[in-house]
Formats: sequence, structure tokens, C-alpha cells
Amino acid sequence: MDTVILLVACPDQHGIVAKLTQCIAELDGNIVDSHQYSTDSDSGQFFMRLEFCFEDSPDEDAIRAKFAPLADSLSADWQLYFTAQRPRMAIAVSKFDHCLVDILYHHRVGDLAVEIPLVISNHDDLRPLVEAAGIPFHHISVSKETKVEAEAEIVDLIKDTSDFLVLARYMQILTGDFLKNYGKPVINIHHSFLPSFKGANPYQQAHDRGVKLIGATAHYVTTDLDEGPIIEQAVGHVTHRDTPHDLRRIGRSLEQQSLGRAIQQHVNHRIIRHHHKTIIFE
Amino acid sequence: MDTVILLVACPDQHGIVAKLTQCIAELDGNIVDSHQYSTDSDSGQFFMRLEFCFEDSPDEDAIRAKFAPLADSLSADWQLYFTAQRPRMAIAVSKFDHCLVDILYHHRVGDLAVEIPLVISNHDDLRPLVEAAGIPFHHISVSKETKVEAEAEIVDLIKDTSDFLVLARYMQILTGDFLKNYGKPVINIHHSFLPSFKGANPYQQAHDRGVKLIGATAHYVTTDLDEGPIIEQAVGHVTHRDTPHDLRRIGRSLEQQSLGRAIQQHVNHRIIRHHHKTIIFE
Amino acid sequence: MDTVILLVACPDQHGIVAKLTQCIAELDGNIVDSHQYSTDSDSGQFFMRLEFCFEDSPDEDAIRAKFAPLADSLSADWQLYFTAQRPRMAIAVSKFDHCLVDILYHHRVGDLAVEIPLVISNHDDLRPLVEAAGIPFHHISVSKETKVEAEAEIVDLIKDTSDFLVLARYMQILTGDFLKNYGKPVINIHHSFLPSFKGANPYQQAHDRGVKLIGATAHYVTTDLDEGPIIEQAVGHVTHRDTPHDLRRIGRSLEQQSLGRAIQQHVNHRIIRHHHKTIIFE
Amino acid sequence: MDTVILLVACPDQHGIVAKLTQCIAELDGNIVDSHQYSTDSDSGQFFMRLEFCFEDSPDEDAIRAKFAPLADSLSADWQLYFTAQRPRMAIAVSKFDHCLVDILYHHRVGDLAVEIPLVISNHDDLRPLVEAAGIPFHHISVSKETKVEAEAEIVDLIKDTSDFLVLARYMQILTGDFLKNYGKPVINIHHSFLPSFKGANPYQQAHDRGVKLIGATAHYVTTDLDEGPIIEQAVGHVTHRDTPHDLRRIGRSLEQQSLGRAIQQHVNHRIIRHHHKTIIFE
Repeated sequence: MDTVILLVACPDQHGIVAKLTQCIAELDGNIVDSHQYSTDSDSGQFFMRLEFCFEDSPDEDAIRAKFAPLADSLSADWQLYFTAQRPRMAIAVSKFDHCLVDILYHHRVGDLAVEIPLVISNHDDLRPLVEAAGIPFHHISVSKETKVEAEAEIVDLIKDTSDFLVLARYMQILTGDFLKNYGKPVINIHHSFLPSFKGANPYQQAHDRGVKLIGATAHYVTTDLDEGPIIEQAVGHVTHRDTPHDLRRIGRSLEQQSLGRAIQQHVNHRIIRHHHKTIIFE
Repeated sequence: MDTVILLVACPDQHGIVAKLTQCIAELDGNIVDSHQYSTDSDSGQFFMRLEFCFEDSPDEDAIRAKFAPLADSLSADWQLYFTAQRPRMAIAVSKFDHCLVDILYHHRVGDLAVEIPLVISNHDDLRPLVEAAGIPFHHISVSKETKVEAEAEIVDLIKDTSDFLVLARYMQILTGDFLKNYGKPVINIHHSFLPSFKGANPYQQAHDRGVKLIGATAHYVTTDLDEGPIIEQAVGHVTHRDTPHDLRRIGRSLEQQSLGRAIQQHVNHRIIRHHHKTIIFE
Repeated sequence: MDTVILLVACPDQHGIVAKLTQCIAELDGNIVDSHQYSTDSDSGQFFMRLEFCFEDSPDEDAIRAKFAPLADSLSADWQLYFTAQRPRMAIAVSKFDHCLVDILYHHRVGDLAVEIPLVISNHDDLRPLVEAAGIPFHHISVSKETKVEAEAEIVDLIKDTSDFLVLARYMQILTGDFLKNYGKPVINIHHSFLPSFKGANPYQQAHDRGVKLIGATAHYVTTDLDEGPIIEQAVGHVTHRDTPHDLRRIGRSLEQQSLGRAIQQHVNHRIIRHHHKTIIFE
Repeated sequence: MDTVILLVACPDQHGIVAKLTQCIAELDGNIVDSHQYSTDSDSGQFFMRLEFCFEDSPDEDAIRAKFAPLADSLSADWQLYFTAQRPRMAIAVSKFDHCLVDILYHHRVGDLAVEIPLVISNHDDLRPLVEAAGIPFHHISVSKETKVEAEAEIVDLIKDTSDFLVLARYMQILTGDFLKNYGKPVINIHHSFLPSFKGANPYQQAHDRGVKLIGATAHYVTTDLDEGPIIEQAVGHVTHRDTPHDLRRIGRSLEQQSLGRAIQQHVNHRIIRHHHKTIIFE
């Protein structure tokens, strides 16, 4: 069943839910799922996800015309999504393929309701894997000298063809300029239980510290490296017997799990970003 | 902040959310939390939890007068709760005290917003523990011959003094007559991962089968033994080294966890029972 | 580093560890890992896994000649494995490919130290996937009438070419004759948290019962269907919102995890079967 | 059954296991459990835990006389424990009582095989709880000015009466002098998933960062604050709805779990400390 999803964030005040749901009733929509959350601080914030459907195809113009004036009066940030239109997900990878393989598998069997217009990589190694899945592959090598041009080339490729970008172990740090020019959400998988072990080689760090649990963190990318809003985290047990090689093997599975769940939440429009945190309506 | 919680279950139809939230807006209430869920089958069912507050104390009569005609028109089951009124939780135990100890601890430190009017037991062993917490303790012994009288005595004690009953390892099976005469929810902890290992001595059964995980299940009690609607389940890893004694030790912790969470969900009015299942709005 | 692994099971008695390790010392072997477990019942059983290495290549004949008389005197069941010889794992599948995809991935990236001589299926659907991995694929269709011949054909194919068989969602029940004629370990993944929901369509059963956790179980196959020794179990949380379709999606991941771990334990010779249970030396 | 436990750590070399187990055989001991682990680096280290029993009471002098020369020749660190002698566990607390309550409960029901000679606190609040359990309580207040004297007083109280000290949310940092003068193991529970959120108020830090998992870490105390060898870690899921108060509630349970398991491992002599890590033979 095709539905419409409305995400709203605004300063809290009396009667918002009634006003929003009244709009939907007047449009002859039927609400099938709704979640709301208000912070309880003095300057309260209101967040809501409403999913609704219609007897016939939804009339996007009518819906937008109905909500726009209300959203204005509430000083609300709002987005409207139509599940009939699948989100377009660009992917960037380097040489590690475990997250990519997992994403392509779930896409193939129908668990992941996205279009994948292209995969970009700074290496050519994963071309066969991507092309075997019938997806265009673009090799854009990056060096210190060519970083500006490479990022510009990536933006050209994905700006109009994608709705968000997933860094599925893309081993290049994106610049603030890239994020600004692309202007759409970017999801990264960090191979650590943030905020532990930021930076390079977290599994070696975890082994050196002798931890008994390791993790992985999927988060939105901001200009503040490794500090973007966290979406999902996964952990697994390790023992003194586990070598750094074992930690990487266990970690790969945790990375697949947490990135996979984060993509699902994003694709189903269940996430509202608020400052450096996420509200997730599960 | 004192709030009002409305739970609604009814056949699905257009515009229910708008009607319900409009009522709250007309009462000058402010919705602070809302969850909704509709089954997607043809004969769809609609479930909603609305939590709202007022500038002043809520006027129960006015609220009931407002919702009653709407609920009628929707053929809805509905309950209204006021968090200013703490639920009254009766407890029944036998000789095992781990769940009782855990409940009394969380009650003492303020994690559990209930009144505990009394504890009932078919043995006298746990009297000191209960009375040390300042709670009345009633020893009502039960034998095959006295079961009818004993149950009648319990109903007399708890019918008007409690809103629900928790069986915190009460080793007697309640009759259908008891459930009918009490007429309020009864929560049980079953020391197994239902539907595995129903019946007596599940830890010995689990050990004999050589399972690698054991569990515990908190559920509402119905006349169908061990088949009531499940609220919470917890599991823990075990190995070949674990004896039935070890399984019981691990199991005790799982029982505390799952019963504790189930009570929290019930006390916070987050559960709607529907046939033999639970809808839990977390 | 190539090592030798000795698994021993025998009635418990004084001094067994000293005798076993003395043998290794006299062979100039160096023990790198050892685990032992004794049941504490009156008729105690002794289980041990010893992993050892040599300066030069191990001399299999010398090692066997050394242990054979000791094992005889202990009335021991014993197996000797050389990690330089990778186990040969035959795979049987039907149409579901999630476990197969997971196994092939871990095999490709070097996480799974086995040879895969062939994949057998009662359908032809997964041939491209298998052949793309460079592994021979055999389609052996099975009907009620042809079951005897089909099983004989499978035994012919795998008896001399494999050391164990993995049923990676092979939707046919193997007969006792097959198990006897093959004579080597068979590992199955059951899409349930055994002993719950034996039999067909466990996810529908789990949904109907309203459970809050679902699971998967990897076990050795015996003639007693769904009752073979359990190797690994995994569980995941579900809610009232999860449809049977969702349970299947979550379950697929649990099946991959538990079958994957079970295969690792078997391949690393960490499992001793004892009656209908497993001793796993992790 | 009373057993003897031998923990050994030494540089790796050929034949150690045979020599150790030969000693036990010559003493007429019967090994009931053994674990060994060797690091695979060039300068390999050997670690072993051997648990053995005798027909009659073990003769400590004879056992020590047997192992001492072997240990010397191996340059081994070794400890010998007799399960007939329960370890004596001193406890230090401040005002939070959740870990203390949990420890006292498991002690009372027989899950925790220790003597508890005394509880020390820098506040008098928990005296009734401790004395109700029949355990002496010592209030030793600590200020900046009296820290040296207070620590000296504690050492006087526990040095000869305890085998190890558990900081069950003791909110004072112990000095290096204290650790040196006490000279026995000290176990601490840190209310965070180390190495995340070191220092004060980790739950507020976790809330501010918007993490989706929080944790607790039990570790041995060294002079390097929050960097001692980790014994156990536990994690729990949190969401955007959880306030810092909720995180503290969830965290209390994680602290109980990880400290409880760490104490069990220590009491059962399953831990060998090596540099800033732990080898745990489960």
C-alpha cells in the first residue's frame, strides 16, 4: 500500500497534533501510523511522524498546499515523502566490500526499498561486484592533489541522481565543501563504538586496551569528524583470545548490522535530525 | 508533571486520530506523547495511546464526558489513567524471593511508580522481608482441599485494594473463577522462554535438551495456562558447563529483568491487550 | 602456523591429562591451546581438546602410533586433525539463498578455512550464484517417488569428496538411511529457537503466538527430527508491528549468524558430540 | 567438592603442560578442569588454569613443595587456591546502594562463595542495610585534608582481614600509596563503557552525545585512573526518549551485571592479569 509520510519538527505548543491530523482528515487521508515526541525542557521541541494513505493516489500538490500554511504558522521544519517514490541511494566504497555486499544482497532480495543509481569508488577493485549487480560503477581516484577535483566530480555525478549518500567503508574524509555542495544526507559507518577509539585502526586500539566488547556506529556525516548524529550502534563480545584479525572479522559483522539498520530507518523516513542527535520513530 | 493517558482500541476507520486529538485540543490539553498502530488486515483494528497534560489539574469528569460519546460512536474500548494516581499493585509469592527482592528495591529507590498495598503468600517464609519494607504481609496457605476458600480470601483482600496483581513466582495455579472474580489484570513470570519448556522444572528440561540459550517470559494470566499474552521475554547464553543449578542462577536474573520490564510497561499504561497478544507502545 | 588438534572423550579417571600431554611432550610437540571438561556425575565423562605444533611438519603416522595404545587403554573415542588439511564441506540448498550467500562470502574473504567441493540442490535456481563462485553445482530433484534414488545419488557425490555436509536451508528431510550411508556429520539450520515451533512455518507460528523474541538454531542432524545436538542459537527482538514477512527478514539474519558460528566451531574442531548434546571448547 | 586451583603465567616453552600435569599426577590429584592460552607472538607467554581434586583433603605443604621448584625453573608467576577456603571480600561504598544490594543478595542466597568481613563507607547512610545483613560497617569520612589518614585507616582495617577489595560505587579516588600499602587486588565498577566517557557524570555525557547504547565496565584498579585491566563490560539500548535519569536507571542494572560477573570470575580464580589486560578462563 502506498502511503505518505510527514515529518515535522517545531517549537512545542498546544494543539499541534490536532491541527496536523485535522489537515489529514480534511484531505480524506487515513492515518495508519503516528509517533510523536516532545522534549520536556522549558523551550520544548515537538517532533512527529505521520504516515497516512488515501483511497486513490495521493495528490502531492493538494497535500503540500494544505500543510504549507500550517507549517508556516508553527515555524516548523517539515518533509513530505511518498512511498511510491523509492529513495535513490548513492554508495561510495574503497576496497573493503563487506558492507557493500550486504547492501546489494538486501537490495536484490527486496528487503531494501531503494533505487541504487551508482556506486563510486576511489579504487577499481569492486567494479566486477557492482557491475554484476547491474549497477553503474564509477572509479574516481583521489590523491591529496586531486581531492578538490575528485569531490567536485562526485558531486556532479550524484547531486541530481541521488537523494542520499552512503559511505560503505569509503576511506576518504569528505570536506565541508563537499557536504555543502551535495546538500543531502550522508550516512557513514564508523568501525568503532563511538565515542571510543576515534580515528585510525580502532580494532588495534581496542585490542591494545583489552576491551571485552567491540562495536560499530552508523551516523550522519557532519563537518565534525566522527561526531555526527548517531543512528545505530551494535556491539559484540570479544575475549583475550581474539587477535586484531579476529576483531576485524567480528567488527565486519557489526558494521553490516548497524549500517544496514541505519539505512532502513533512513529509507523508511523514521529519522528526524535535531542538532547533533537523532529522533528515531521505530 | 502529571499527565493523562488515554488508551483506545477500535475497528479502524478514517479520521479517528483527528477526532481524538480534536477532543483533547477542545479540552485545552497538550499532547506530550502519542503512538498509534493499525493492523493492515481487511478488518483492520486501530490502537492508540495518547498522553496529554493541562495547565491546571485535569478535570476527570469533563474529560470522561468529552470522550464517552466519541468512544461510543467508534465502538471503542477505552481506558483513562491519571499519573497523579499511582496504580496499586498486589503481589503474590511463594518461597523464591529473587523477583520480590528486585521489585521492592526498585520501589524503594523510586524507579517504580506504584503503591504496594500488600503481599500475599502461601508460605510464611518471606514475611520478614516484606514487613521490613513496611508492607502488610498475608499468609494464606493453600491445599487441594482449601483452594476454593483460599482464592476467595485472596480476592477479598485484593479486589478493592489493588488495580492489578503480580505473581512474583507464586507457585499456585489460579483458577478461572479467581480470574473472573478478581476481574483485573494478573501478570505472571514464567521461568522459561515460552513456548519452550512449558510446565514444571523448565531449567532441568533445558539442561536435558542441551540448549545454548535459556529465557524467561512475563505474560498476562488467562485461563489457558502458560498461553496468556506475552509482555516481555529475556534470554541468556549458557554452555555445556552450566549445571541445572547454574541455569537456575542465570534464570533468576532473566526472570527479574523480564518481570521488571513488564511491570514498568503495565504501570506506565503502555500495553493494550488484543486477543492473545499485546500491543506495547514504547 | 599449522597445528594438530586432538579431541578425546572417555570415562574419567586419574591422570588422563598428564598421560595425554606426556605423549605430546615425547613427540616434541608444543601445546598451544588446551581445554578440558569433566562431568561431575558418578559415572564421570572426560572430554579434552589439545592443540599442539611442531618445529617441522607433523608426522601423522608417528602421532597416531603414539596415541593409539593410550587411547585403547583409556577406552577413548579420539580424533586427530591437521590444520594443514582443510576440511571439505559439501553444501545442500533449495531456493532460499541467504545462508549460502553468507557462507560463500566468508569463504571468499578467507574467514572460513574449508574447501567447498560442491553444492547440491533439489532446484536449479541457485546454479548461477554457485558457479559464479567457481564451485560445481549439482541439481538433483527430489520427489516422493525418487527420494531413495536421489539420496543415493547425493551420497555417491559427497561420500568421498567431503568431510561434512551443511544443510543451508535444504527443504528436504533426510532419511536415516542417508545419514547411515553418508556416515559423516551433517549440520542443519532450523529457523526457530528450538524447541519452540518445531515443524513447518515457524515464523507464522511465532507471529500467531505474539512472541517478543524469535530465534534460530544450528544443530547436528540425527534421525530424531529437530532433536539433534544443538550447536548454536541466536535470538532477536520483535514487536507487535512485525508482520510474518518482517519475522522472516529478521530470522534470515539470525539463521546466517547461528549457522555461520556453528560451521566455524565445527571447522575448528572445537565440538565434541556426547549423546544428544555438544561440548564446545571456545 | 573441594578443589585446588593453580594459576600459572610464564614465558612459553615446550612441554610446560606435561610438566605441570605430571606434578599433579604424582601428587595423586585428579584434574577436573583445565584451560590454557599462549600468545602467538615471538616472545610468547603461557597462561594456564588447572583445577584438581584429591581423594582426601589436599595437603597444601606437599602441593607447594612439589610445584615450587618447577615454577622456579619456568620463571613462572603462580598462585595456588583451595576452594575450601572462601576468599574474603572487603567492600567500599558511598551513597549509591544498587551494587551493594545486589552483592548482598547473591551472598545471602548462596550464589557468591565469599566471606564479607566488613563494609567501609565515607558516609553513614548505608549502615542499616549492611548491619541488617549481619556485616560490620565502618564509617570513615574522607576530606581533602584527611585523605591520607582515612586511607591509612582503611588499610589497617582490611589488610589482614580481606583478600581483595570491591569498590561498589565508592566515589573516592584511591591513591597509589593506598594500592601499594594494601597490596591486594581492587575491583572497581565504572559507570561507562570504557574507554568512552571517562571521568565525571558519564550518563550526562552519553545523553549529550546522543548515543544509542550505554554501558558499564568492571576493572582492576591501577594507579592509571580508568585505565586498569578490564574484566567485564555490559551494554544496554537507549533511545532519544531516555532522559539522563533514565540512563542512570538503565545504567544501574548494567553496573550490577558487570560488577557481579567480574566478582564471580575473580572469586572463582578464573582471571590472570597480564600487563594492562586480563586473561579470563571461562
